[in-house]
Amino acid sequence: MISKRDVEELDRADPLRAYRGRFIGADDDLIYLDGNSLGRLPVSAADRLFEVVHSQWAHGLVRSWESWITWPREVGDLLGSALLGAAPGQVVLSDSTSVNLYKLAAAALDLRPSRRTIVTDSGNFPTDRYILSGLAATSELRVVEVDGASLPDVVAALSDDVALVALSHVDYRTGALLPMASITEAAHSVGALVLWDLCHSVGAVPISLDDCAVDFAVGCTYKYVNAGPGAPAFLYVASGLHASARQPIWGWFGQQAQFEMGAVYSPVESIERFLVGTPAVLGIALVESGVRLLAEARLDRLRAKGIALTSLLISLADSWLAPLGFSVVSPRDDEKRGSHVSLRHDDAYRISQALIAHQVVPDFRRPDLVRFGCSPLTTSFSDVYEAMRRLRDIVSSGRHLDIEIPTRRVT
Amino acid sequence: MISKRDVEELDRADPLRAYRGRFIGADDDLIYLDGNSLGRLPVSAADRLFEVVHSQWAHGLVRSWESWITWPREVGDLLGSALLGAAPGQVVLSDSTSVNLYKLAAAALDLRPSRRTIVTDSGNFPTDRYILSGLAATSELRVVEVDGASLPDVVAALSDDVALVALSHVDYRTGALLPMASITEAAHSVGALVLWDLCHSVGAVPISLDDCAVDFAVGCTYKYVNAGPGAPAFLYVASGLHASARQPIWGWFGQQAQFEMGAVYSPVESIERFLVGTPAVLGIALVESGVRLLAEARLDRLRAKGIALTSLLISLADSWLAPLGFSVVSPRDDEKRGSHVSLRHDDAYRISQALIAHQVVPDFRRPDLVRFGCSPLTTSFSDVYEAMRRLRDIVSSGRHLDIEIPTRRVT
Repeated sequence: MISKRDVEELDRADPLRAYRGRFIGADDDLIYLDGNSLGRLPVSAADRLFEVVHSQWAHGLVRSWESWITWPREVGDLLGSALLGAAPGQVVLSDSTSVNLYKLAAAALDLRPSRRTIVTDSGNFPTDRYILSGLAATSELRVVEVDGASLPDVVAALSDDVALVALSHVDYRTGALLPMASITEAAHSVGALVLWDLCHSVGAVPISLDDCAVDFAVGCTYKYVNAGPGAPAFLYVASGLHASARQPIWGWFGQQAQFEMGAVYSPVESIERFLVGTPAVLGIALVESGVRLLAEARLDRLRAKGIALTSLLISLADSWLAPLGFSVVSPRDDEKRGSHVSLRHDDAYRISQALIAHQVVPDFRRPDLVRFGCSPLTTSFSDVYEAMRRLRDIVSSGRHLDIEIPTRRVT
Repeated sequence: MISKRDVEELDRADPLRAYRGRFIGADDDLIYLDGNSLGRLPVSAADRLFEVVHSQWAHGLVRSWESWITWPREVGDLLGSALLGAAPGQVVLSDSTSVNLYKLAAAALDLRPSRRTIVTDSGNFPTDRYILSGLAATSELRVVEVDGASLPDVVAALSDDVALVALSHVDYRTGALLPMASITEAAHSVGALVLWDLCHSVGAVPISLDDCAVDFAVGCTYKYVNAGPGAPAFLYVASGLHASARQPIWGWFGQQAQFEMGAVYSPVESIERFLVGTPAVLGIALVESGVRLLAEARLDRLRAKGIALTSLLISLADSWLAPLGFSVVSPRDDEKRGSHVSLRHDDAYRISQALIAHQVVPDFRRPDLVRFGCSPLTTSFSDVYEAMRRLRDIVSSGRHLDIEIPTRRVT
């Protein structure tokens, strides 16, 4: 059985342990296991934001656009090389994940005009499914939803009628990590394009978009990238598609010689053709800080710690929580799991609320999951141990039964 | 002839003069006449941003979403009532102006499926024209561009084939202010819908969307609203259209019972159906501060000062600059002009650069306009006087002729 002393030893030996001090608020009493919903605030990001706001905006004013104008691509390149395995010129910061999904899925469908099928996962994040069904409704396409999206499931859904396979790299509920290379290859073998949603993997799991020959990808930056609530999202389009792929929102940031203000939209033949409106400058500055911190920590070490943290959590859940009605829904194979773990329990909502009352923040995922994010830079082994101990004590003593279930919740 | 003493007297009598001290950097030596491109930083906005970042994000973490989740509408209502003449429940902060234009123009076209024409202005801001032509290309519609967009021009372009009239309230180059009520009425008389772009009027010119029976409107917040570079945009949809109008980007923030993560997209019957992805929380906080400052200053006083500043600029241009080859392209009728003035000169680019070198920041608009924004909260009568004086001295002495014209400019 793992002891408190054991986990303290793991923390002492952790090469990333000092990074916790690089975040504001990380020394509070809270055990925060929801960094995969909203990451913590890096000190460097707060400093950088202050400088951009007080110096570049307040004093540089409109003259600062000479530098800001290239940030979507510059920070995209930084993110692409540090976290996505993407050569320069294929990633930009832009819009929200949902809008980017719309743009890239539409571009993909436009490249396969005679095909009438989109393949996704019934468990894919809602906005992904909604965006795809909106596009399908407009163009009279069919969306096929496979359950669970393993390689065999996806392969079984493929045919030469499939225009696009759009999946999440890591499942937002179960944490299942899909085999990007083999699914991409299978989709390509029938002539389909692929679009990966990287929201729950970027910054925690190594990604090799170029090596996997991925066509399109999107992702957010407010989870493991720690760029703050509603920070701008990114998109990736493989360079081979830049000349032919066209997105439907013809904004002026995609235009050639943008400030000529020409009469006719004629997009650049580069990744900027997927930009639309004025970029969110302050948000992009925060993304840059977040990416630099992750790059400094090194993705291989982040991944190793993520695996160690989630493995510890699963072990403790097996020992302490299985007898209390919990089951682990996340993959037990380290290679098939992202950096979060979900436990199923009939009383998941009340248990989540009771945990929050005891200074442990997980995420509740309807109807019956308690989700624990193990953000490698800010989560210690002691955090995981203590969270599981409190969870065990709450449920074994029935303290969660005092929580009222509201008839209508905001979140 | 207006003297320096006269304008100093105007500044002393200005009821809004104290507001300049409410902005960071406004006491520097710069004469900033580009607040209609990027507004200055309000002290209150900087304070608010610090609080949201350091308290709500760093310490509240994901729990702060309970409050953030309603900000797009709450700040929308605030902006709508203070600046747009919009009753509650019709405005949200969301995405960029370009993306909002796309969503609302698409929604309008969807409401008039049998009509095949969009009417806009050939001088409309590029992103507006590009977005409309993108939608037209997809749906095989026709875009008719009238020149200058006066009421008679628009009326002449109307027919029962027109689905949508999409115009800018204030022209980004000339500053011409269009008659919103009469154009909207004319469009409605043939059964067309209207979409107004308010980027260059919001916060400087009183707007009455409800009274004018406007259908759709969009606008940015980084100009007169002073919410910072790339701050989130807003959109307005008249409440009577909420049940029927449907936008094409089916994001999860438009979904009923969003956190049920339901299988099928079923949008709310309220303004939130025009939301898409996770809102830009920090940007919305800045918008709130900007709107509160404008509301405190009162739009009637802002408008009166805007007219007085631009009138002064035109008078000085007539006296001092006409002999040097300048002509005023902005309307001379106060009621037909927004809060900026453009002067035409064959050497406009070099003159703009020379002005910047002499600590006056205007905006150059190709091919031959120098544009001066008179943001009422941060611009003094002395600023306008001194800027015109320096402009006269530069051009009369030929100092601008030393500026090199680059073969390719970034901006």
